[in-house]
Amino acid sequence: MSDEILSVGVIGLGNIGSGIAKNIIEAGYQGTVYNRTPAKMEPFLEMGAKPASSPRQVASTVEVILTSLMDDASVESVTTGEDGLLAGLKAGGIHIGATTISPRLTARLAEMHQERGSHYIAAPISGRGDYAQLGKLITQVAGQKDIVDKCMGILQCYTQTVTYMGEDHKAAANAKLAINYMTVSFIELYSQCYAFGLKCGISTELMHEFIETMMDWYSPRQYARTIKDRIYEPANFKVTSGFKDVQLMLESAKEVGAPLHYASLISDKYISLIARGMAHLDWSAIHEVNLWNAGLD
Amino acid sequence: MSDEILSVGVIGLGNIGSGIAKNIIEAGYQGTVYNRTPAKMEPFLEMGAKPASSPRQVASTVEVILTSLMDDASVESVTTGEDGLLAGLKAGGIHIGATTISPRLTARLAEMHQERGSHYIAAPISGRGDYAQLGKLITQVAGQKDIVDKCMGILQCYTQTVTYMGEDHKAAANAKLAINYMTVSFIELYSQCYAFGLKCGISTELMHEFIETMMDWYSPRQYARTIKDRIYEPANFKVTSGFKDVQLMLESAKEVGAPLHYASLISDKYISLIARGMAHLDWSAIHEVNLWNAGLD
Repeated sequence: MSDEILSVGVIGLGNIGSGIAKNIIEAGYQGTVYNRTPAKMEPFLEMGAKPASSPRQVASTVEVILTSLMDDASVESVTTGEDGLLAGLKAGGIHIGATTISPRLTARLAEMHQERGSHYIAAPISGRGDYAQLGKLITQVAGQKDIVDKCMGILQCYTQTVTYMGEDHKAAANAKLAINYMTVSFIELYSQCYAFGLKCGISTELMHEFIETMMDWYSPRQYARTIKDRIYEPANFKVTSGFKDVQLMLESAKEVGAPLHYASLISDKYISLIARGMAHLDWSAIHEVNLWNAGLD
Repeated sequence: MSDEILSVGVIGLGNIGSGIAKNIIEAGYQGTVYNRTPAKMEPFLEMGAKPASSPRQVASTVEVILTSLMDDASVESVTTGEDGLLAGLKAGGIHIGATTISPRLTARLAEMHQERGSHYIAAPISGRGDYAQLGKLITQVAGQKDIVDKCMGILQCYTQTVTYMGEDHKAAANAKLAINYMTVSFIELYSQCYAFGLKCGISTELMHEFIETMMDWYSPRQYARTIKDRIYEPANFKVTSGFKDVQLMLESAKEVGAPLHYASLISDKYISLIARGMAHLDWSAIHEVNLWNAGLD
């Protein structure tokens, strides 16, 4: 295998994988593609990619293989077994895992590759199909530094931002989970607010304006920094004031009949802060409860 | 009382109230100030404001009185009673309530003013002390339209954005609670992520980068729109995929020992969606659960 990677195989040509494959082929790599439904390979064959009939066959013809699949089960299935990519990949070959999978499987894939003399890098992506087409995904990558460096050109051709997370493969898997956790928590939060708004006579259009205002506002960013630095004094808004407002939220949620599901959880954490003599700190001191709950203090 | 308001009283010169008073006096209104701790009035007397010895006295010398206080109890106490502002305010006088108080008290204040021939407008602010000084607060205002219009010049002199919420005073109180609910939910979310990151070997600096990326990213904004319009097909990311990732989050949270407190709640909502045959929709269809829970479907 040369220092300069020339051939890349892509397994999985779904919503995200097809965008990744397109950008890899357009960047000039010799592409080989495999998809369980063969019809999805056709556009890539027209672009000059070679077809393969199994993950093993892709792996045996390329230096680097990238998987963009559904979940742990599908990644495990294309990786292991008689027709799996591990059986085909040459010594020194590299497997880039772009799927969001469990940190546990991530670590196991890295071990399996190491035992066979090939390499695994964990590179789960964030973004949707149209961003994959535009080469604007976000990648968190972890694995052996020189192997990651070798793949940087590939990662960058479909990615807007690549963040190296270190040698521990699990860190990339967990960072991706944290990104998705934020996304799904935002979705849930906004949804609660729309429903609450409707019950209070606040139109969805107007609530949408407030949500857009929040995204652009200094306030969430400022609190992210306050929490990062754990500087809660002088208080911008005291724990007691935050607690008071959360009680008003709970009361209003009950009155208008629209649950604010995060509010009770947050209320209970403020009760703990007050019980521990932290009532005078900034309301972002709620972070101390979360640190303590994680065994960090 | 003339159509053009000339005199404005401010009760409460704390972190926010002092910034509001400064901007009102600088805008050229005849200011009168009152604060429970008299020393806090001094800087405003130097700016030309008149001192008052009770809320009642402020109210009796001005056309418009603004209260910026702590909570329901403090607002009620300066409003009612023998020395309260209601006892002093002339017929046609206006009370602007800038404090975050309960929708219940908001409605009661409006009634009390109406009975006495004066007017209440609910105008709770969002923002912190330094933004109050800069005149960059956010105000949601509700009340009788012509009275609100009359006060618009006052509101604008300390505010970056004023949103009129209609005649129902409670709508402004609830909109403010929704803004604070978003803020405190962001704080809690970020805090959970920092703690989780630390347990996964992701430095706080790096997690902070991810949080900043999220705030600037198209993704949260896109989902706010998807939810607003309730368009879940074609799915960008299916309920089943969202559910899978939330299970991975819960598993990883357990493994590294850092609770992700929103994840179980969200997981349960996905279970409901799947049980109701909505597994193929976009994961933002979680909104349908929240609408149903609020009696809206």
